[in-house]
Parts: sequence; C-alpha cells; structure tokens
Amino acid sequence: MHKKPTIGILGGMGPRAGLDLFEAVLDNTRATADQEHIPTLLFSASHVPDRTTFLLGPRIDSAPPDSGLPDPALPDPAPPMSEALVRLARAGATVAAVACNTAHAEPIFRRVQEHVSLNAPELTLLHMIQETVRTIRAAPDATSSAPNATSSGRAPKIGVLATAGTYQLRLYDDALERAGFTPLLPDARIREKHLFPAIYDPEFGIKAVSSPVTDRAREAVTISIEHLLDKGAERVILGCTELPLAMDGHHALHPYVINPTQAVARALVRATCPERLQPRTEHLRPHQHPNPC
Amino acid sequence: MHKKPTIGILGGMGPRAGLDLFEAVLDNTRATADQEHIPTLLFSASHVPDRTTFLLGPRIDSAPPDSGLPDPALPDPAPPMSEALVRLARAGATVAAVACNTAHAEPIFRRVQEHVSLNAPELTLLHMIQETVRTIRAAPDATSSAPNATSSGRAPKIGVLATAGTYQLRLYDDALERAGFTPLLPDARIREKHLFPAIYDPEFGIKAVSSPVTDRAREAVTISIEHLLDKGAERVILGCTELPLAMDGHHALHPYVINPTQAVARALVRATCPERLQPRTEHLRPHQHPNPC
Repeated sequence: MHKKPTIGILGGMGPRAGLDLFEAVLDNTRATADQEHIPTLLFSASHVPDRTTFLLGPRIDSAPPDSGLPDPALPDPAPPMSEALVRLARAGATVAAVACNTAHAEPIFRRVQEHVSLNAPELTLLHMIQETVRTIRAAPDATSSAPNATSSGRAPKIGVLATAGTYQLRLYDDALERAGFTPLLPDARIREKHLFPAIYDPEFGIKAVSSPVTDRAREAVTISIEHLLDKGAERVILGCTELPLAMDGHHALHPYVINPTQAVARALVRATCPERLQPRTEHLRPHQHPNPC
Repeated sequence: MHKKPTIGILGGMGPRAGLDLFEAVLDNTRATADQEHIPTLLFSASHVPDRTTFLLGPRIDSAPPDSGLPDPALPDPAPPMSEALVRLARAGATVAAVACNTAHAEPIFRRVQEHVSLNAPELTLLHMIQETVRTIRAAPDATSSAPNATSSGRAPKIGVLATAGTYQLRLYDDALERAGFTPLLPDARIREKHLFPAIYDPEFGIKAVSSPVTDRAREAVTISIEHLLDKGAERVILGCTELPLAMDGHHALHPYVINPTQAVARALVRATCPERLQPRTEHLRPHQHPNPC
C-alpha cells in the first residue's frame, strides 16, 4: 500500500524542541488553507533520558570515560528513541527527523538507525547534522557575504555552539571537515561561563525557562556567537535545539547563524511534498512581533 | 498492560492549532527538566476537510441546509478525524483532545466519539467545549471581577466569538445554558465585517497569515471582544483556535477572555499527571517578548 507522505518528528529533547521543528516545517511550507499543509506526527518523548549525561557522565563538564564509550550503568536514550520512531512509523509517518543535536552522536544514533531500519524499514530517517552541513554547502553565497569571508581557497571556518556532549563526540566537527570546512569551537572560558549556563542553568537556562527565554540566556548566547565571529567564523551553527529559541526576533546576528532546526525542517518538506517547499529567505523563523511595540 | 499516561492531540485544524494546544500543555506543566514533562503525541491532520464547510455548505455566510443536516455530498471531516484519533491511541496516547472548536459540533463529534469508543476504547477523549464551560464555572471569581459582573443572581452573560459553523450549531450556546449562563453572540455586522474576516480572509486572516498575525486581524479580534463587553458580557470565550493567536502579548483584554485551548490543556495535564499541573495564573499563555523592545 502506498502511504500518504507524512512527516514524523521525534521531540521532547528538550520540551520545546519538537514543537520548534514542527513550527519550522509550517513556516517552510507554502500553504494558504489548512488542507495544503503536510500531515505531521510529533511524538514529544520527554521520557528519553538525557543524551549528554549518557555520553559524558552525570557532570556536564566531566571528561568522557577512559574507554571513550558511554558508562553502561547510565540510562540509555537509544532504546526509547528507537521505540518512539517505530511508533511514529506505525502511526503513519513516512519521513522522520529527531529534534535533538546531541542525540545524533554516533554511540546513540547508530543504534537508533539500526533499530529503525530493522523494525520500520519503510520509514526514511533524516540526519539533522548532515542536513545542516548540506545546507551550508548548498548555499553558493553561504560563505561569501559573511564579515570573515575568505576568497583565498582556504577551508572556510564554521563556528559551532553546542552542548558538551556534542563537542566531545565531535558531532559537527567531523561532518564539517568531511565537507571541506574548518570547524571552530568556543574557548573553554566562553563555554563554561556563557554557553553551557545559557542551556542548562536551572535558574535562567533555556531548558528551564523558555517561554520567554530569559534576558540572561539571550545575552549569553549572543556573547558566544560574537566570540566565534571574532575568532574568524563565517557562519555559526546553533548546534543545540535550545539555542535558536534565544534568537527570536530581528536579532542583529541572524545573517551569520545557521539553524539546524530550519535545515532539517526544509529537508522534511522536500522529502514529503517538494512542490510545497517555501523559497528560502532566512535561517531563522520570522519574527513573531514585528512592531516595535 | 498498564500504559504510561500519554497526551494525544489531534491538530491541523488550522495548521497551528495543535501546536498551540501542545504549547499550552507545556506552559501548564510544572517541570524543570526534560524528563518531567508528559509524553505527548500530536497528529497535525491537515488533510481533515473544513469543518464549517461541511456543516454549513461552501459559503461561510450561507444558511444551513433546510434539513438542518449536513449535505452528504460535502467532504466529511468525521472519518479522517476518527482514524487519526485511533492512530494516536495505537501510538500510545491514553487521553486525547481535538484542537478545533467547530469539530466539536454534534453532527461531527458524536460520530468521532462513537468510532473512538468502538475502535480505541482505552482512549479517554476530552470535550473542549465542556472543559471550557467547566473552567468558567470552577473559577469562583470568574464572573465577579469583570466590568459587567452582576451580583443580582441573574444568569451571568458569557460572550462567544466563533466561526459561523460554531454559531449555527449552537456549540457554546447550549453548553453555556446548561451550565446556567446566558450566551451572548456578536451582532451580524461585527461578525461579517470583523470576526469572520479575522479568521478566514485569504489576505490578512489568521488561517492564512499567523506568524505573525497581521495587525488587521488583531484589530478585528479586539473590536469583536470590545463589542461583546459593551453588550454586557462578563467573559468572552475565544471559541475558535485561531483567535487566541491574535491575543499574544500583554493584551489589555486578557483578563476578560477565556481561551478554550488553555482550558483543555489543563484538563489534559489533570487527566494524565495531576501532580504536575501548574497553578493557574492567567487564561492565555505568557507573553513571549516581555520587553518593550
């Protein structure tokens, strides 16, 4: 039986990540009536254990285990992720994506892909990291209009803001290098003082307070982006699904950031209803409140 | 087997209605870490035919058919809604709600309920209209602090803003009367000139342009609310899922409006994880951009 093209989104890592990806799908779909949108199934699987803790141990600033492999005693996010994707497929999803950067780390995602291809072989599972790098490569002007653009033929530098887990597992580094870019990471001081607290701080971090994001978290994200631009980045990947939430609105840094949520949203539309793909305008979704109050 | 409490949301009517209900669920859940949120499945079933067209015929301002029953030649939203809810149940949803007011009209919703109770008897299907009226009744001060509050014992007047389908089918009227309230509807002039265009206009209506909602739609919704308050309403129900989208931010009329999306979101949390229900603060979700820019 030919199944109706249906988008599947595995969210819940963090709470608004799936919602944000779904919103990006809507924003990237050309439609003027309800029925012109693409049927979408979102499973916000909030019960999936923390990905960074699994990869690096309970302390986010700790070194990875000596073996380089996750501690087998830590709760493993791969089985519930796999099961949730199979459930999405059984409910009708034909093409799916996982709205979480860290979950794409090899020790987690490889097992998820294996489980899905065995138990829901009809489901196409996209890879957000690969779609993001593809987006940077596909835009001919992606690395020419930036303040640090190089025309010397050297590998363009692409900044990466992410969680400790994503860094340790070289999630974006490897994908960028394979595509001919030089990954650029923030200095330890910026990570510890601004970036990680912006994501994780229980008082003002985006995981704890996201509606609205606190000024303190917004500022910390801005400082982290500026830092990478100062270091020579031509573009900065917001490589954790919480980070774009701090960039809502007409943010001055919009032109220099790459939002993986937008990249994979466009890939989902392209893979299901390519004729409905909205022409590309900007990386982040439109400002919700354009009037200066 | 005891299934893990999981929220199901049938959305897609319009495109952002399900997303908005899911966001309301998150806002009404007490949680500081990903894993404290309630697993949620959202099916944005954009393929469901228009509910108002089915109920009233192709022209939104047309009279209902003489028989009072829907035209059998019009595409029927009940079968795809029913099928989508069964799919949500099979994917793990234990308590579900439909993020569309008009879909709760008797000629549609009764058949959906019958299909679900036959094919997914383990799924508890909430009724958004009944939850909304329950919310107004449950709040002891719901009808005392409003500008038109009456203490004379007369049935308090509750305004209703909705689609033509919702009005014709007396969706809120009957539920309000049964609960001891007097429903108050906008005059025909306000409906035709402001309310229906705010929802349906292909140029500036909320169904066509919602990110952000146009100033013209916002203004039309405000005029419609003011009109009902002028007529003596103590509260105004925003009885179409598009309408609350026009009320984002610190809107002066917030204290007088009842948002069915919030009412049913709270009912979903209560029915799955009552210990996680956020104390009630306001009807609409918090302002996304509190700073005056």
